[in-house]
Amino acid sequence: MLNKINITAWFKGLQTDICDQLAKADGSGKSFRSDLWERPGGGGGLSRTFDGDIIEKGGVGFSEVHGQLSEGAQKNLGVSHGEFFATGVSIVLHPRNPFVPIIHMNVRYFELGDGTWWFGGGIDLTPHYIVDADAAKFHKVLKAVCDRHDIGDYNHFKKWADDYFYIKHRSETRGVGGIFFDRLKGDKTSTFEFVKDVGSAFAPIYIDLMERCHDKGYDESHLQWQALRRSRYVEFNLVWDRGTQFGLQTNGRTESILMSMPPMARWVYNYQPTEGSAEEITLSKLKKEIDWVRMG
Amino acid sequence: MLNKINITAWFKGLQTDICDQLAKADGSGKSFRSDLWERPGGGGGLSRTFDGDIIEKGGVGFSEVHGQLSEGAQKNLGVSHGEFFATGVSIVLHPRNPFVPIIHMNVRYFELGDGTWWFGGGIDLTPHYIVDADAAKFHKVLKAVCDRHDIGDYNHFKKWADDYFYIKHRSETRGVGGIFFDRLKGDKTSTFEFVKDVGSAFAPIYIDLMERCHDKGYDESHLQWQALRRSRYVEFNLVWDRGTQFGLQTNGRTESILMSMPPMARWVYNYQPTEGSAEEITLSKLKKEIDWVRMG
Repeated sequence: MLNKINITAWFKGLQTDICDQLAKADGSGKSFRSDLWERPGGGGGLSRTFDGDIIEKGGVGFSEVHGQLSEGAQKNLGVSHGEFFATGVSIVLHPRNPFVPIIHMNVRYFELGDGTWWFGGGIDLTPHYIVDADAAKFHKVLKAVCDRHDIGDYNHFKKWADDYFYIKHRSETRGVGGIFFDRLKGDKTSTFEFVKDVGSAFAPIYIDLMERCHDKGYDESHLQWQALRRSRYVEFNLVWDRGTQFGLQTNGRTESILMSMPPMARWVYNYQPTEGSAEEITLSKLKKEIDWVRMG
Repeated sequence: MLNKINITAWFKGLQTDICDQLAKADGSGKSFRSDLWERPGGGGGLSRTFDGDIIEKGGVGFSEVHGQLSEGAQKNLGVSHGEFFATGVSIVLHPRNPFVPIIHMNVRYFELGDGTWWFGGGIDLTPHYIVDADAAKFHKVLKAVCDRHDIGDYNHFKKWADDYFYIKHRSETRGVGGIFFDRLKGDKTSTFEFVKDVGSAFAPIYIDLMERCHDKGYDESHLQWQALRRSRYVEFNLVWDRGTQFGLQTNGRTESILMSMPPMARWVYNYQPTEGSAEEITLSKLKKEIDWVRMG
């Protein structure tokens, strides 16, 4: 029978599996470091970090936490039950080569003491330089995942990602989006099958990008642009990402929450890319509602 | 008679004066660039930015804005009047040499359509490496400024800075604090005299630090630590600073608000300084309630 025990076990296995696959594809011979931690209020996690030849800073986090939600947390979640259980896997990878995109994936399961439960998650891509065909391929894979499941609604989840990963103070999306979903509940087994499919899609998607993009040539100007895009990633995560804000403001484990931070970021006052440059073209495509599936 | 016109004029003059003094002390022969901007809802500002020999990234902002407060903004400010006027000067300087501290200063005046008004402001220091005697000297100058005015309450404003410039998710202060005050109202002329004294104290305080610290020798390890401290500065400003959050979430001018960002910052998973190192000693002093005046 499907319950929090075997959902947790599957997530834990996914973390191991993804770390192994990424380390192999990176080709540096290194493996992910492991940092086991406990949560004072109940549960804990395993934070795995990596710096290799292709991936400059990668974090793959697993956690399984339980305990009592504060009144503030209950209000925040819109629930009226204190006892909770949550488990999930969260990933952010920052590559060295500016032509390899940043990627983020999350799958999570939440359960209250009264038996209420839901799944959430998604995958989104943040290229430093947008390549239409790559963004299209990325979205096509996600659409195929959604299309394999009754509960998977690509159009809805794609719009949700556009709206969620939006840097409001810059009027730009974080990247080319992807899919995002929350409070997903239906038949439990088939909902979980969809979430598993999302989780399993992650490694092949990113390994394909690593393999195809990691040896593209770049120079100092591309690295400068990458550092600027990374600062926008920081701005989104610290100012707008509800998970990050909630975690930091409610005594979550700071180092695990901030595994998403880039290794380095730059801020330049009022930077304007040269007209017609690759940088300007990328900026022009950081918009909501681009039908990426049709772009390649 | 003292009114918003001559308060604004004095703030504007302070900006010019500070930029001139800093550029001269920097010694690079460069001057501050000026970027004039307008606020769609009323008013505007002048953002002045600098990169010199000692100061790597400096921003000195002046603004004078007016218009109607949204209901959200009124609630946020705890007022029930829509018409407002606000003017102020805000400064953050990030030096090249890790042995020169980061500094922040703000003086501001706020007025509602019903005639209610108040001043706010403060100066605080964020050394990458804490030197007790320098922190003590800094606090002594601020105490002397406070002591010259009936409304200047050093102990109260020092505690306020400790509480305000606190990176809760790291359990560390942003730096060695300083003074912070808000909603200051008393006799208008003497309150303004105090605020003017704070504003005028800024340039001599920082120029002294520039002159004494800018030619201290440093190597790559000091720069790495500086980059880590800068990432904490980013975290404070984006996650906890009410002014930054409010500005970014209410369509403020992003580039002016984020003039406070460092030129570059690094994030390293779970960095722990070596026992007994200068870095560890600095970390151990990023605490509230240190009586800095007595430390040097």
